This record gives sequence, C-alpha cells and structure tokens, in this order.
Amino acid sequence: MAGLHPRLQEDCIRLGRFDLCHLLLMNDSSYPWFILVPDREGIREIHELEAADRYLLLDESCRLSGFLMAEYKGDKLNVAAIGNLVSQLHLHHVVRYHSDRAWPSPVWGLYPAVAYGDTALAGIGAKFAASGLTGFQSVPES
Amino acid sequence: MAGLHPRLQEDCIRLGRFDLCHLLLMNDSSYPWFILVPDREGIREIHELEAADRYLLLDESCRLSGFLMAEYKGDKLNVAAIGNLVSQLHLHHVVRYHSDRAWPSPVWGLYPAVAYGDTALAGIGAKFAASGLTGFQSVPES
Repeated sequence: MAGLHPRLQEDCIRLGRFDLCHLLLMNDSSYPWFILVPDREGIREIHELEAADRYLLLDESCRLSGFLMAEYKGDKLNVAAIGNLVSQLHLHHVVRYHSDRAWPSPVWGLYPAVAYGDTALAGIGAKFAASGLTGFQSVPES
Repeated sequence: MAGLHPRLQEDCIRLGRFDLCHLLLMNDSSYPWFILVPDREGIREIHELEAADRYLLLDESCRLSGFLMAEYKGDKLNVAAIGNLVSQLHLHHVVRYHSDRAWPSPVWGLYPAVAYGDTALAGIGAKFAASGLTGFQSVPES
C-alpha cells in the first residue's frame, strides 16, 4: 500500500482500485463505510487535482455511490472530503440508516470503531470482487 | 428562494448563484461556511444528478473552493454532502483553521451557530459580488 497515509493503512482494509483511486473499507462494522483515495502525491483538496483527475474522482465516486446504495439499501449516503486528521485527499462514502447508532449525526469522531470479523471481511471482499463495478479491480486474494 | 428547503432558508443567507447551484452562506460566524445547492428538484444524492449536472456541480465547487482558500487562507477545507437532516442535495464548504473552536472535529452538530452581524454580512456579500468568480451572479442589493 505504498503512498497511503499510515493512518489510512491502520484504520482501513484495501479492497482494490479504480483507474484513479484506491478503494478502502473503513474497519468499522457500525456502518458500510468506504473511502476513495486518489493515487496522486501531495494532493490535499479536491480542487488541487488536475481537471481530468477531478472528473475521474467524481465518476468513480458516483459509480461507487450507486453500487453502495443498491447493495446496502441505505436511507442516505454521506460523501465527504474532510481530512483534518489525515491530510492526504480521501473521500468518505458512508451508507446511513435511520436506525444506525449515530443517526442523524455525522459519523466522524463519534464512537470508537467496531472492527469486522474475518468472515464479514471476506464477504465484503467477495461482494466487491463480483460487483462488476466499471474500472474496479479487486486486490488479489492472498 | 423558491425550491430551497425551509431549513436551508432558515439557517442560511443567499449570496447568489452559479449556472447550476445557489450559493448560500451558513449564518454561523464561527467558520467561513458556504453551501452549494443544485437548482434541481427531487435530488438527494450527488450520483442522482444527470452526468452533465454532476460535472457542473464539481466545477462550481472547485471554483468556490479555490476562491475560499485564497480569500480566507484556511488550513483545510471540508467539502461534504451529508443531508441527514435536510434531504435536498447541498454541498458544504467549510474553511477550517487549526485555531477554530471545533478543530480537528467536523463542524456539524457540534456547537450552536453564532449569527453574523449586519456589517459582517454586508462585507461578505460585497466580497462575493466583487469576486470575479466565473459564472457567479450575486443577488441584487435590496
């Protein structure tokens, strides 16, 4: 995972990548929570990306968003570039439910993460490997 | 302000509009906090916009972002589509400082808003009217 901020490596599991972005799973089973990280050095804000990369980021974000809402049937999607703690540009996608523990608050900094078990992680990896998401390549199984 | 969710009308001051989006100022002087609202009915998520509108939203967001960071010289920009309380799609742009009262937390739901005074509001309106932001039209002075 060269190029990923240590905090992202620590908190997340890498699922694969699109043309521009790594796709990470936040290791917090409280919410279906996924993060796109553009594979570009030294970028902190969306508007700092080259225009072509911005559009790619948007396209990959929208493909992921549509898939997540279809797959997880959430009530709302939260999409956010915050980066106050991890300066490397990363775009959160959090599927929200009226019944989730943080609703209607945003999820950041509210509760400690609840790590996934191995079976759940394998299931999510398999779901994305079989997703058919355009341009997505899952990480090779180890 | 037809078409704007009542909560946005209550919490914000309308500064003007770009081709696609209304530009609102959140009436909270704690942070330079601006909101883009695409002028489209019934849209809750970015990926629900038509592709051309998505790109417009991104362009307007990036123009605004560059202007805000140059003008307010923030340490970080938070850009987010949350919408748990107000379902109409709206994109927050919050200029953050290491010294602001919420840093490094996200700002949503943390502290009560501190309304601007009339002089400060007039100053912000004038700043945007003179911004030269491409495609931006400020509201006529009353």
